[in-house]
Amino acid sequence: MSPRTGRRPGDADTRGDILEAARQLFTEKGFDAVSLRAVARSAEVDPALVHHYFEGKPELFSAAMELQLDLPALVQGVLAEGPVEEVGERLVRTFLQVWGSPAGDRLIALLRSAAVNEDAATMLREFMTSTVLKGVVRQLEVEQAELRAALCAAHIVGVGMLRWILHFGPLVQAEDEELVAWLAPTIQRYLTGPLPTDA
Amino acid sequence: MSPRTGRRPGDADTRGDILEAARQLFTEKGFDAVSLRAVARSAEVDPALVHHYFEGKPELFSAAMELQLDLPALVQGVLAEGPVEEVGERLVRTFLQVWGSPAGDRLIALLRSAAVNEDAATMLREFMTSTVLKGVVRQLEVEQAELRAALCAAHIVGVGMLRWILHFGPLVQAEDEELVAWLAPTIQRYLTGPLPTDA
Repeated sequence: MSPRTGRRPGDADTRGDILEAARQLFTEKGFDAVSLRAVARSAEVDPALVHHYFEGKPELFSAAMELQLDLPALVQGVLAEGPVEEVGERLVRTFLQVWGSPAGDRLIALLRSAAVNEDAATMLREFMTSTVLKGVVRQLEVEQAELRAALCAAHIVGVGMLRWILHFGPLVQAEDEELVAWLAPTIQRYLTGPLPTDA
Repeated sequence: MSPRTGRRPGDADTRGDILEAARQLFTEKGFDAVSLRAVARSAEVDPALVHHYFEGKPELFSAAMELQLDLPALVQGVLAEGPVEEVGERLVRTFLQVWGSPAGDRLIALLRSAAVNEDAATMLREFMTSTVLKGVVRQLEVEQAELRAALCAAHIVGVGMLRWILHFGPLVQAEDEELVAWLAPTIQRYLTGPLPTDA
């Protein structure tokens, strides 16, 4: 029954309260419909405190969903760092590392929920659209950037699904570098290749 | 309380009894551990009757899971019919049609179950391995045929997941032919292209 207003940033669980409120609101309403202001109101803290702890909504979402990684920043980094003709390779390698890490376990849990629950599907879709997709579109000056990014996402999600959820033999047994060698040219073509003639 | 032995093929729900028994056994034990003989025993019919109605275990599984399509035969057909240099295009087009059909709804339901339920995941994995994968390996004389087929499956499952389960905008809005134009070269390379240098 401690008073919940007037907290300073240093207070023990202000950040935890914000995360708990965010997790509830995102789960109830999806990614788009939740504002940082609404999270602050629900957590009974000053909106400035939300901004103090989290750079923006994607970062708050990642933290609230315990993804333990800043997916938008990760994608931005991969796209911007290094030669553009190796972006496919960097993206595949990064995602294989993420999927295989503790953060990957949370991604898998989120994907599992999204597979069976319409609200979770909406949340994941809106998060992917607002962050990963827009990041790719902003970074790469290509036609049909959204479809290109979606094709990459579909392939990477599919590999994750078959390798780590269905435990599909050939993908489980393949070395990461073997998968990189197969997948990188595909992702590279989707991101920077010419439009297919029939599309 | 009608007697269940000595039924002739024409009896009203012999086929239905077999399907019900198969559905239960596949769900309990997975694809590999269930024999046609065990299905016959559980349905209390002569094993010859199971063979009378279903060509083999994959066909029984497809029917029991109400997939309303014979996936192994479909894949075999796609691989064998027409020029090999267009197999990627045929495969993508066929799968987009299947996903978008009533049979696709059952595939989606199966995929959803497999995403959250270990038994369903095992069942789907074993079914895919025993049928689709072996079909590809048998039909295409290439090195690493199993990994190639798995990469195709991963991509197709990922597109299905993002388009029909997550309703991801760019994939929902894309025309089938647009997707064929993007995806076919990828599937073609996975099935018949050279091994990547690093793999």
